[in-house]
Amino acid sequence: MKIKIDDLRSKIEKVLASTNYSEVQSKAIAEVLMYAELTGKNTQGLLKLSGTEPIQNIKPKYEPKIVKETKLSALIDGGGNPGILVSHMATKMAIEKCKEFGFGIVGTNNTFSSTGVIGYYASEITKNDFIGIVMAGSPGAVAPHGGIDPIFGTNPVAFGFPTNEWPIVFDMATSAITWYGLVRAKALRQKIPDGVAIDHEGNLTTNPEEAMKGAILPFDKSYKSSGLSLMVELLTGPLVGAAFGDIEGKGDWGNIFIAVDPELLIGREKFKENSSLLIKKIKESRKAKGQDIIHIPGWKGFDKKEKTEKSGEIEIEDSIYNSIA
Amino acid sequence: MKIKIDDLRSKIEKVLASTNYSEVQSKAIAEVLMYAELTGKNTQGLLKLSGTEPIQNIKPKYEPKIVKETKLSALIDGGGNPGILVSHMATKMAIEKCKEFGFGIVGTNNTFSSTGVIGYYASEITKNDFIGIVMAGSPGAVAPHGGIDPIFGTNPVAFGFPTNEWPIVFDMATSAITWYGLVRAKALRQKIPDGVAIDHEGNLTTNPEEAMKGAILPFDKSYKSSGLSLMVELLTGPLVGAAFGDIEGKGDWGNIFIAVDPELLIGREKFKENSSLLIKKIKESRKAKGQDIIHIPGWKGFDKKEKTEKSGEIEIEDSIYNSIA
Repeated sequence: MKIKIDDLRSKIEKVLASTNYSEVQSKAIAEVLMYAELTGKNTQGLLKLSGTEPIQNIKPKYEPKIVKETKLSALIDGGGNPGILVSHMATKMAIEKCKEFGFGIVGTNNTFSSTGVIGYYASEITKNDFIGIVMAGSPGAVAPHGGIDPIFGTNPVAFGFPTNEWPIVFDMATSAITWYGLVRAKALRQKIPDGVAIDHEGNLTTNPEEAMKGAILPFDKSYKSSGLSLMVELLTGPLVGAAFGDIEGKGDWGNIFIAVDPELLIGREKFKENSSLLIKKIKESRKAKGQDIIHIPGWKGFDKKEKTEKSGEIEIEDSIYNSIA
Repeated sequence: MKIKIDDLRSKIEKVLASTNYSEVQSKAIAEVLMYAELTGKNTQGLLKLSGTEPIQNIKPKYEPKIVKETKLSALIDGGGNPGILVSHMATKMAIEKCKEFGFGIVGTNNTFSSTGVIGYYASEITKNDFIGIVMAGSPGAVAPHGGIDPIFGTNPVAFGFPTNEWPIVFDMATSAITWYGLVRAKALRQKIPDGVAIDHEGNLTTNPEEAMKGAILPFDKSYKSSGLSLMVELLTGPLVGAAFGDIEGKGDWGNIFIAVDPELLIGREKFKENSSLLIKKIKESRKAKGQDIIHIPGWKGFDKKEKTEKSGEIEIEDSIYNSIA
């Protein structure tokens, strides 16, 4: 169905405000879900209000609270609130610190459920012409290179860089397939691709249920992506007081949000000029056979968002809309 | 041949001091080269004093100078000095800033020749119980995903994390093969592995010379490692005023050195306790078939270094030693 963008946003806000969230909190969560829908990352949008663990049904233990703060940093105890809500708050804090001191780093722990599309937070940071780095921890799902137990989370990482056009927003899981990829394949009774996961005994499997009992592999199946996954694990677990190496997958989730002002080095205007020139060089370079474009990270989504916003209406799945109505 | 470690260090220092470097500068460069030799990264050690571009023959234009400085940051114009010398200086500055303010970021530009084994700088940062992030730019060699021109450098990245044992020091190129890998294969008239490089027309090639005229692929040959390479390019080029998107490969090289004090978040002691616990969980987890150990990044090198230092002597190739003697 097609629905007015503003109506969808209001709908999401209303559903959230009807349970455990204040108006301000509902708006914050809705903003992140709408970004996902508008940029075409539907699995991180409206879907979060349906299924087995809808955000509106989460019962936070207490309001998020700042348990440590310095000029450059803050550590937030999420109080069992949704990852999206606490991440929205953490991003704002990192930006405020960066505005004042040129750098801000905010960690969160004790959040519940998904952090949503982490490119959103990196993108918000770029709106101030800052460079954003965001990482999200999650329960053990990925085996380290050489191992078969699910020690690491799927550990996504996002980077945002300001330019004179759209920002560069790069967002990837360090795992070969996302956890949601397994859930979806299981629900649709589909196989998962070859070589992305192993069963509990360490044998490659294309069966999503076996993979859930086993482990996902790091994205390039070598020591490189395994090392990157370890890095995200260290920054979103040990550094912020959240769970890590969480084979049982029961622990609380942690995240890290970093904002760096280019003014610390080359300066904001010069950085944007340079990053736009790099984009130009990439776009003007020769394409591989069968390619008519070299994608700039995030731009496909921003293009979709811009077109959708211009039309005022957004296409969503009837079944998902009805499930939250 | 076997040679006393101290004698090798003195030898390197003497060779460097005999040309364009002060005693202090010679010691700094030697320290980085010795780290490479001791941890078994021989291609980044003594070899840098031989070949077509030996460090002792570089003619710096002027002393490195700080062109911008804030409490948290510095930008260093390398003055055409060796990447290793300027990186050594930048690492020290990042550490000093981090000691005072909990965070330090130092960029360099206008350096000449290789940055050496960048794990060294990350490792130095961990000696203060800080987290280190180091990235090195280099002339265009790698094609972005979807393209065939060598836009990105081989763009290595290193992370260092303090623990209660050896630090975790992870060091990787974001390219599928290093530039030195091509140089070496060419010299030995060997083929390079399948699928790591393309010729000038974008066809896969195993011929190192064709690859040099073409481009290396990002390490996982997908948008993921291409995005990571772009990120390193942005942080070591546009952000620090060095060359970027440098297809001609003529530009100056840039680097970035970041130190973060865990005291900003969970605290130094708790971080080390946590990171050591994560290592324990990894080491105690089940191994893949045929594996008797899951490697902790950097530890193979530290083990080698410790044993070599205990023996007092180091094994080096006669031909390389003689070429600098």
